[in-house]
Amino acid sequence: MLIECVPNVSEGRRADVVARMAELIRSEPGVRLLDHSSDPSHNRSVFTLVGDAAGVERAVLTLFERAIADIDLRAHTGEHPRVGAVDVVPFIPIADATMADCVALAKKVGAEVASKFGVPVFLYEEASTNPARRNLEDIRRGEFEGLTPDFGPKAPHPSAGATVIGARMPLIAYNINLATDRLDVAKKIAAAIRQSSGGFRYVKAAGFKLENRGIVQVSMNLTNYEKTPIFRVFEAVKREAERYGVSILESEIVGLVPSAALNGAAEFYLQISGFKPDQVLENKLRSEN
Amino acid sequence: MLIECVPNVSEGRRADVVARMAELIRSEPGVRLLDHSSDPSHNRSVFTLVGDAAGVERAVLTLFERAIADIDLRAHTGEHPRVGAVDVVPFIPIADATMADCVALAKKVGAEVASKFGVPVFLYEEASTNPARRNLEDIRRGEFEGLTPDFGPKAPHPSAGATVIGARMPLIAYNINLATDRLDVAKKIAAAIRQSSGGFRYVKAAGFKLENRGIVQVSMNLTNYEKTPIFRVFEAVKREAERYGVSILESEIVGLVPSAALNGAAEFYLQISGFKPDQVLENKLRSEN
Repeated sequence: MLIECVPNVSEGRRADVVARMAELIRSEPGVRLLDHSSDPSHNRSVFTLVGDAAGVERAVLTLFERAIADIDLRAHTGEHPRVGAVDVVPFIPIADATMADCVALAKKVGAEVASKFGVPVFLYEEASTNPARRNLEDIRRGEFEGLTPDFGPKAPHPSAGATVIGARMPLIAYNINLATDRLDVAKKIAAAIRQSSGGFRYVKAAGFKLENRGIVQVSMNLTNYEKTPIFRVFEAVKREAERYGVSILESEIVGLVPSAALNGAAEFYLQISGFKPDQVLENKLRSEN
Repeated sequence: MLIECVPNVSEGRRADVVARMAELIRSEPGVRLLDHSSDPSHNRSVFTLVGDAAGVERAVLTLFERAIADIDLRAHTGEHPRVGAVDVVPFIPIADATMADCVALAKKVGAEVASKFGVPVFLYEEASTNPARRNLEDIRRGEFEGLTPDFGPKAPHPSAGATVIGARMPLIAYNINLATDRLDVAKKIAAAIRQSSGGFRYVKAAGFKLENRGIVQVSMNLTNYEKTPIFRVFEAVKREAERYGVSILESEIVGLVPSAALNGAAEFYLQISGFKPDQVLENKLRSEN
């Protein structure tokens, strides 16, 4: 059983501080650090790690300890909104882990962070116990001072603030490039398909111009590929574009995508009936491990 | 690096003999037996095993030793054509193994089988050194007595016959069901798409009636999904069917399919540009192991 974890830390400028955090995660048995990147203007770093539940739990607690020692939010500036030194920690089911495993881990780690470090913990997304706090944006908008946390003290930690811990599906960054330079078309399509303006529940979308290529892009985050699959979004964008006489030039997946999300597209287009995940050779190999 | 191996043995009736072979494969370190099945009317068993090159090599040699002790071809009857006690042994690249790895392994195991057991070995498919012997059917048609083997004595072993060892791509058993009961349509489409009558190079196909469902099926083996991908075959069948006013009801994958074959279809239909295999989360995890 493998769980992915993508902690966001409010430090993206001091390279030595970030490198030390990466080293701590790497040295945790049962855990692999797949990626980490820092954005100086946001003053923020994102780590992507994977491991069994116990390993990921240890790595996250070690990261909190380090971040609380190294980061003082009172001296922090940066464009990105944040509530804490360790700002947000999502646990994500991959391989044979379930969402229930990740929700349980989020609550366990949340309780530990609150009691060990005195930091207020807000649970979000699938781990949320309160529908008004499912969305990270809603917790941030509450400016956390006004809300009672799920674990820990009501007042934020003086230097480390608060933190948001939860469980969510893997996020797929997916863009569709249109064979046109008409930005209005990309914006209209983005509005048609995104949840916020009446489209698919698990789609965030915006229209952009790719200046150097003379085309436009519908840029998307797909936040639950099981409930809003890639192929359905692709077909909807294609159909909306047709209405303006525009065709799809290409699409692109930015970063990682779970195998199951691509298999779902193959199953749909090839009209495969009665397909089972363990028919995929690699899944079969893993399950027999 | 993982290699799959699918030895076919000329024994499908004596369950105890087959069970002992399965047990020997299972007990080999570094090897997993994914599946085995026996067909009494063919008097033949098929084992599917996976492991590192050294483990698979040991398992195959042990299987030969057992089969030569237990099977006497002079007393063998069965519908399926065969040349030996261990009839055919293909090595198949999966995960990070290449075809070159499998060709090398086929030659190594072939030389060992010939010298250890005095069984003539014919190399086939990608391991073949002779274009006239690439196809298993051509070696069988030669009735092996007339051919000089790649390794070992010219005359067949008295009780164990000869054997055919080689390397090939994973085979995908893929069927497309048509929304019609017209067998002639299935047969015409099968003829249009299969290699033997002018179609795609890596497709074998036949048309069948599914009596109990009142529909027909184009039943296929795809022998190289990299060079003749599933989606191209699906689209060709769909187009040919249209010409008779027939639509596709569904398709089915029988048994296992490599993840890359399904990803290829997703990439095609979603028009994904610049996609790299290590963007698939599971591949990334494996490569960082």
